[in-house]
Amino acid sequence: MKVKVGFQGERGAFSEQAGYEFFGDKMVPVPFRSFEEVFRSVKKGEVDYGVIPIENSLYGSIHQNYDLLQRYNIYIVGEVKLRIKHYLLANYGVKMSGVRKIYSHPQALAQCESFLKKLKGVEIIPTYDTAGSAKMIKEKGILDGAAIAGKQASKYYGLKVLRSGIENHEKNFTRFLILSRRKIIARKNPKTSIIFTTKNIPGALFSALGVFAYRYINLLKIESRPIIGQPWRYMFYLDFEGSIEDELCADAIKELKRMTQYYKFLGTYEKGREVE
Amino acid sequence: MKVKVGFQGERGAFSEQAGYEFFGDKMVPVPFRSFEEVFRSVKKGEVDYGVIPIENSLYGSIHQNYDLLQRYNIYIVGEVKLRIKHYLLANYGVKMSGVRKIYSHPQALAQCESFLKKLKGVEIIPTYDTAGSAKMIKEKGILDGAAIAGKQASKYYGLKVLRSGIENHEKNFTRFLILSRRKIIARKNPKTSIIFTTKNIPGALFSALGVFAYRYINLLKIESRPIIGQPWRYMFYLDFEGSIEDELCADAIKELKRMTQYYKFLGTYEKGREVE
Repeated sequence: MKVKVGFQGERGAFSEQAGYEFFGDKMVPVPFRSFEEVFRSVKKGEVDYGVIPIENSLYGSIHQNYDLLQRYNIYIVGEVKLRIKHYLLANYGVKMSGVRKIYSHPQALAQCESFLKKLKGVEIIPTYDTAGSAKMIKEKGILDGAAIAGKQASKYYGLKVLRSGIENHEKNFTRFLILSRRKIIARKNPKTSIIFTTKNIPGALFSALGVFAYRYINLLKIESRPIIGQPWRYMFYLDFEGSIEDELCADAIKELKRMTQYYKFLGTYEKGREVE
Repeated sequence: MKVKVGFQGERGAFSEQAGYEFFGDKMVPVPFRSFEEVFRSVKKGEVDYGVIPIENSLYGSIHQNYDLLQRYNIYIVGEVKLRIKHYLLANYGVKMSGVRKIYSHPQALAQCESFLKKLKGVEIIPTYDTAGSAKMIKEKGILDGAAIAGKQASKYYGLKVLRSGIENHEKNFTRFLILSRRKIIARKNPKTSIIFTTKNIPGALFSALGVFAYRYINLLKIESRPIIGQPWRYMFYLDFEGSIEDELCADAIKELKRMTQYYKFLGTYEKGREVE
């Protein structure tokens, strides 16, 4: 059975690639212009799932998506850690020596800085999207330029790979989350994500983390985001090992709720492996 | 005595305004194109101080500056919490009814969304900078357009205020840090900022925070950033009340250092008041 999977970006984007890693051939990709449109269409049931980037191992969290997880009542049901490998793509017939312009998103350009610095007489042109740059050189039939994008973009737009693995750091991974409007609790190798705010008293965060530490529940990540309308107060996003249905974790959450002002369950899902 | 103060952006930027709030008339503003250039020139002694935004009360932390604080060996010596009030600015002679185009940085445009939505037949044009938009309409003598920027930009470029306080949220503050290459420990109403990484063991963050909680030292903020080359491990930035020279805090730091892999002192400085 096919599943419709929404993602932000042009066809061939890294988010689409992450979706294929998770769903395989049964995925029908549905591109959207913004992250918020992905959330909205998952919520409305226009797509079966959404896939969004949440964190990059070099550049950190994508905060807009943290904020959207708080605002939309949908669940995290899966995770993919995708190695971000950049490719220099061009139309067939274009040689490396003929490349005078290189197009890509500013973050991808920054991630390939060492490679780009070695090139001479090449103009670097920032664009709105990696896959979008690949699309553009294909559609416009550009013969003096190349785009930096992922391998999915090379396949989708039928472009030649001039150079592969041109990123500065090999430990460049982006972690993607799979979203659904249905709550599905994973049994295998589970991790859980929650949001909470503490009462405004000294030691409040320490006490909240103690709920997990005293039960030997391993914390995987903590992220703080501002509370709108309350300057210098924060909301905490916590990822920990275990399932919300484990007795130990359920117990921890029960205790946590007594000391928080706000609590939200985001999902229990299988920990993602790192894939290329 | 005059002091040279570096900031990122065009003259009239919010960072410049924050600098004037801190240094008053003795400030000689020195604009730079990037945050990193501000750090570099403070480090080299080309300017006496730098002023950088670190956090907005609605949009969260400016992570690039967190990362730069870790990489450059300079100190935080002050703090300013500036109310971000947006103004619609135009050349003299331009009336509200004559405005067909509005220019500003995408974040400022987003912060004024409710105001902009009510306007009819007006084109919204994203630019690289708020003060830069004000500069542009002045220099080009644009008579059918206006810019959204701070009050400093109106003064600096001699533009008329068409509308003031057009931002969506009144609790919109940006927190700025004052940087120096000299360590200056504040005595009055001090707060301290540090960075650390914990050992990779369960409960490590909890234990680290315990060092403060058991001494009733109040934590003001915790921020996590990725460790480059070690995917899914994090560096913690902590702000707490008190001075590094207080016995209690010094004791806490001594204990903390025994359980961390990496520790860096960023500064003890006077807590900033909120200013308009």
